[in-house]
Amino acid sequence: MQIIYTIAELRLRLASQKNIGLVTTMGNLHAGHIHLVNLAKQQSDCIVVSIFVNPLQFGVNEDLAAYPRTLDADCKKLEAAGVDIVFAPSESEVYPTPQTMTILPPAIAEELCGASRPGHFAGVATVVSKLFNIVRPDVAVFGKKDFQQLFIIRQLVSQFNLPIEIVAGETIREEDGLAMSSRNGYLNPAERLEAQRLSRALKLVVDAVKKKKLGFTEIESQTTQYLTQLGWIVDYISIRNQDTLLPASTDNQKLVALGAARLGRTRLIDNIEFDLG
Amino acid sequence: MQIIYTIAELRLRLASQKNIGLVTTMGNLHAGHIHLVNLAKQQSDCIVVSIFVNPLQFGVNEDLAAYPRTLDADCKKLEAAGVDIVFAPSESEVYPTPQTMTILPPAIAEELCGASRPGHFAGVATVVSKLFNIVRPDVAVFGKKDFQQLFIIRQLVSQFNLPIEIVAGETIREEDGLAMSSRNGYLNPAERLEAQRLSRALKLVVDAVKKKKLGFTEIESQTTQYLTQLGWIVDYISIRNQDTLLPASTDNQKLVALGAARLGRTRLIDNIEFDLG
Repeated sequence: MQIIYTIAELRLRLASQKNIGLVTTMGNLHAGHIHLVNLAKQQSDCIVVSIFVNPLQFGVNEDLAAYPRTLDADCKKLEAAGVDIVFAPSESEVYPTPQTMTILPPAIAEELCGASRPGHFAGVATVVSKLFNIVRPDVAVFGKKDFQQLFIIRQLVSQFNLPIEIVAGETIREEDGLAMSSRNGYLNPAERLEAQRLSRALKLVVDAVKKKKLGFTEIESQTTQYLTQLGWIVDYISIRNQDTLLPASTDNQKLVALGAARLGRTRLIDNIEFDLG
Repeated sequence: MQIIYTIAELRLRLASQKNIGLVTTMGNLHAGHIHLVNLAKQQSDCIVVSIFVNPLQFGVNEDLAAYPRTLDADCKKLEAAGVDIVFAPSESEVYPTPQTMTILPPAIAEELCGASRPGHFAGVATVVSKLFNIVRPDVAVFGKKDFQQLFIIRQLVSQFNLPIEIVAGETIREEDGLAMSSRNGYLNPAERLEAQRLSRALKLVVDAVKKKKLGFTEIESQTTQYLTQLGWIVDYISIRNQDTLLPASTDNQKLVALGAARLGRTRLIDNIEFDLG
């Protein structure tokens, strides 16, 4: 496995490479990332994993400085997973000058996670565009845990005519149901015990929707109240149309229950897709 | 020469093509466009010329509907010029769904032409991004007549890490100095006679700057007054730094005098680069 730090060297290495698979990460890798690598391997001959903590997608009061940088441990995991190239550029390699041109994401980027993280998806779409242009992958794999991000990346690819196939990886969970995330490492033991409740609450949302006794808004607000009483600060609990991410209507068959909530200083997100058969 | 109307067919044709040169146009071609084709031929083995009147870069009160569509005549000129492929997609081929994600250009896009054409450069940058992703050229040639556009395209390529070399083509002029433009065809005979005055006025600006007797702002406003008295509606006359497009300071060596002004309903633009030796 090669570790490459510069765009020029990466381009040279990939110049005549066919069938490239890309997994973009911010490092601090867990089994969820390795699952994405394995999906990429099924479709590609050369797997590139980028590790870059992208300042453009962090708000001023967010955890950019605290975000765990664990390059050596990450590289060991990626080598064991059969990755060909780790691309680990510095901030000045990706942003040699201020990024005064950005991707303006669609209106949906202002809702859900975007409502509490203004500018986040513009930062994501911009850095992913750059990485796509640097690596020129045939396939890129993104996790469903970041459901809204996946939605926006699919829009990016389709609306900008990028010749890249986007593959979605299922969310990998701890035994108690907590979705794997680099940010789980911020949780203290009591918070870690409580953290499983987010995925459980979303399961209750799904069950309630299927029972059809309560309206979507009622289910959302009752679930928010339930988590709030348990000490969570809830950003949103929302039932949405899987294909558009717009608020679900009772006509929609393919839905997704999404949630974002904070335990102490740690913000967790999760979602469950489901069908109204 | 092939004329291709769909993205799928174009991709198939270019799949194993090396060394592609692209000239993006809105059709109604003149000698200025052919000059760009000739520049592309010097560096590429396969020349693609796109012809697409991009609705996204026209304001609501602009000349989108009136813009001349002359595909047959254009193709004859391009065949004679040795072009390999004309890409002439329909509006629904380029925008099968509403373009809800766009390129947000840098602040300079709000000045000069952007001040009187809000959203114009976002539309330009977005469609050029799409065409770059569809054609994947090695070289793309843009004319210096659209100096601000060229500046923004260079920023697009550099800030989004596009592996494309941008080549700039000199402005081609009529015998009386009028910069060639598809919009010159809108001028009535009296306006056509007067139109040469824009390039002459910009030459006077350059001479005045070199003489160093008047300040830049004075030169700009005197030239604006001069054209206004002759019946022009002046959008701007501006002396700028060639490298940043910011208002020039007396320290700058490489300057450009830019102007945009209307004769009747026709908006003309022009510019002259010059050095303060």
